[in-house]
Formats: sequence, C-alpha cells, structure tokens
Amino acid sequence: MDLEKVREKSINLEDIIIQGLCQRARFKHNNAIYEHNSKKFLFSNNYEGTYFDFMFKPIENVHAIAGRYECFDERPFYKGLSQSVVKRDYNSKIPDDILKFSKKINFSPWIKISYLNFLKDLCSNGDDANYGDSVLCDIFNLQAISKRIHYGILVMEAKYQKSPEIYNELLSKDDDISISSELKNVNVELKVLERVREKSIKNGIKNPDVIVNFFKNIIIPMTIQVELDYIFSKSILSKKS
Amino acid sequence: MDLEKVREKSINLEDIIIQGLCQRARFKHNNAIYEHNSKKFLFSNNYEGTYFDFMFKPIENVHAIAGRYECFDERPFYKGLSQSVVKRDYNSKIPDDILKFSKKINFSPWIKISYLNFLKDLCSNGDDANYGDSVLCDIFNLQAISKRIHYGILVMEAKYQKSPEIYNELLSKDDDISISSELKNVNVELKVLERVREKSIKNGIKNPDVIVNFFKNIIIPMTIQVELDYIFSKSILSKKS
Repeated sequence: MDLEKVREKSINLEDIIIQGLCQRARFKHNNAIYEHNSKKFLFSNNYEGTYFDFMFKPIENVHAIAGRYECFDERPFYKGLSQSVVKRDYNSKIPDDILKFSKKINFSPWIKISYLNFLKDLCSNGDDANYGDSVLCDIFNLQAISKRIHYGILVMEAKYQKSPEIYNELLSKDDDISISSELKNVNVELKVLERVREKSIKNGIKNPDVIVNFFKNIIIPMTIQVELDYIFSKSILSKKS
Repeated sequence: MDLEKVREKSINLEDIIIQGLCQRARFKHNNAIYEHNSKKFLFSNNYEGTYFDFMFKPIENVHAIAGRYECFDERPFYKGLSQSVVKRDYNSKIPDDILKFSKKINFSPWIKISYLNFLKDLCSNGDDANYGDSVLCDIFNLQAISKRIHYGILVMEAKYQKSPEIYNELLSKDDDISISSELKNVNVELKVLERVREKSIKNGIKNPDVIVNFFKNIIIPMTIQVELDYIFSKSILSKKS
C-alpha cells in the first residue's frame, strides 16, 4: 500500500467533489426529485418512490454488472444489485488482510442521507426542471464522496502501522473515545478546510462556507467513523482468527 | 430563446468538458476498454463487443427511461433505447419551429468516434486497470461535448434571426461553403481557444495543446457542421410547409 498514492488520490477526489458540488449548486434544489411519489413525475410503469432512486439504482446496477463493486474502494448505495458478469483486472494492490477486515464496512447509505439533507444548504430553493442533470450531479458527487470517506480504511491502516502499540492498548480497553481523539488532527483538518475554501472559490461558488462546513461536519467526521469502524473490525477479526 | 443564457450554458459546458478531460488524462489510455472482445474482459453472459459499450449503452438506456431524450438539448449515442416511462416538466423554452427543424439532427455517434480517437493523444499509453472510472469519465465527457456541439442549433437560429436576408440568399443557392465562412469567426475562435488553454492549465494538465487542439479541430468544426445542418434542414422544411 502506497500512502503517498492514497494521499494523492484523496486530494484528487477533493477536487472532484468540490467541482461537482459547485456544478450541483448551479441548479435549484429541485426538491420534487427527492419526494416519494411526487406529483411532478408520472410513471407509466407504476413505479413508486423518488425520481432520484428511479435513476440512481438502475445506474448503480449497470456499474455493478460491469464489476464496480468487485473493486476495493467502491461501496454501493443500494441493496439487491445484480452480480457482476465480467472478469477483469482491478487496480488494487490492497493487502489481503485489509480487504478481509474492511469488506463489511459500507457507509454509503448514510452518506446519501447526509448529502441529500445538505442539498438544502448548497442549492437555492426552487425548481428549474433540471431534474436529470441534478440527479446525475448527485450520483457523481455521492460516488466520489463515498470513495473519499472509505479511504479512511487505508488511512487508518497506515496510522496503525505507524504506532500499533498505542492503538492496541486503546483497543484492548474498547476505548473508542480515545481512539477518536487519537485520530483527530486539528491542524491537518484546518489545512484541509482552508484548501477546500480556496478551491470552492476558484470554482465560482458564491458561498464557500456551505462547502467548507460540509467537509467539516460531514465528510471529515464520517471519515473518522470509517477509520474507527475499520480498526475495531480488524481488532475483533484478528482475535477470532 | 435567451441567447445570453445559451452563451452562459455553453461556457459552463466548456468548464465541465475541460475538467472532465483533465480527469480522464489522469488515467492511462486503457485501450482494452475500446477493443472488441478484448481478452482483458471475460463476460459470463456471452456479451460480445467492447467494455465501453457494455457500460455506456445500458447507462444511456436508464437515462432514456428517465426521460433524458425527451429534452431538447440531449442527443443519444445509441439506437434502440427504451422509451421514457416518466412524464415530467422539461426546462426548455425552445420555440416549436426550432424543435421541428432540429429534431432529426444527431451527431452524437460521430462525436463518439472522434472522441475515442482523441483519447490516444489525451492519455498516456498503457493500462492502469482503471477501466470503470475511465469509461465513466468518457460518458461524462461525451454527454457534455454532445450537448455543447448541439447548442450550435440555438447559436445558428440566433445568427439567422440577426440577418435572415444574408442566409436566405446563400440558402437559395445551396451555397454551403459561403454559409460556413459566414459562420466562422476567427477572432471569437481564438478567444475561445485562449480561454480553453487557460482553463486547461488551471486544471493541472501537462500538455494543454492537446485539449486546445481538440476544441480547435473537433468541437468547433462539429459545432459549425451542426449549425449548417440545422439551417439547411430549416430551409428545406420551411419550403415544404
């Protein structure tokens, strides 16, 4: 596992997320997209649900069939997706035990909830009928955000490798609070948030605080939660084997 | 039709395309994606074709079912897509006669060919196994490029409205060459290309010339071709009615 590469990929995902959020902000909130059985959409096939799920799940299913979720750093948002029908190489040189300890970690559905809630702050109120574009923006953003957050697994493993005795000690006491504090690095966070602010401004957003706060209050805490889940999962599964 | 809005949308699409191309350039060419029955992909459902089409067509089909191609400025890349099952509002205040004269104009399959050919210049040679991400980048780029090029219809209509006598005169002589010259504005093009260069550099591309040349040699000429097709189609259909 090449930590420098993880860092580089993570910063690139940050770019992608910020660009994507700024694109989404060009459209109105278009709340009807996220409403169950909104009267703005009449489905001739008797579909019941939101227009958002109507588009996202079958698209995710195509990705699943094409093998997306065979890849280490991809976590689906929906259940009941089709199996992949393709055998191919994957660009993942993740050690087997990281795979073993992390494969059940999937926060994507929770990320989706927080993201959809955040749209109210990101977008101006109202309806501009750019429904499809809004959903595609959302899918693009959610997939990048999910990947960025689940990279917490690799970050955690790297931190653990650096000082296993500290973490083993805390894990033996099931001390999640102390591990969280151990993982939190206020200075690094401030640097990330400053970078997010600069990039948001460069991408023409009117109110960069909205995006900075999303990183501060959602993306970073969720990443730490993934780190925490991973290290506990590793600890429990290591004992078993 | 609000020309200022068309211009604004067109420049925004330029941003999206440049960002997307720079993202695609982060991956290798991954030529196997575009090879018919490449041995890098084993399909358990006996699919024959490229991995690229394997992903793109069903994704486009989801878009079709969700109503994408009911919208004026969307042109599909594949044939035989499913009908939309949803009735909803569309954000399009395009006059009916523009719709009538333009609905058969679809250059997307040609855009796809040129784009795939261009990838050899955009990406470095080789295979990094980022197949899915590469295809998703390509889909994102192709849809934006197609929209940008088909905006030529609106640009043409605006130019025609400004000086109908010039175009009517040339159309009466079937003089496509003179209309093309009329449409070409070297100074505007140079400005666009300069803007493309600056944005490409800002997006961290090593060789901005590649993207500038793609705009110069593919996107701009194809836009003019769409303009030309539209004005001839309008001329022929107007005579008939």
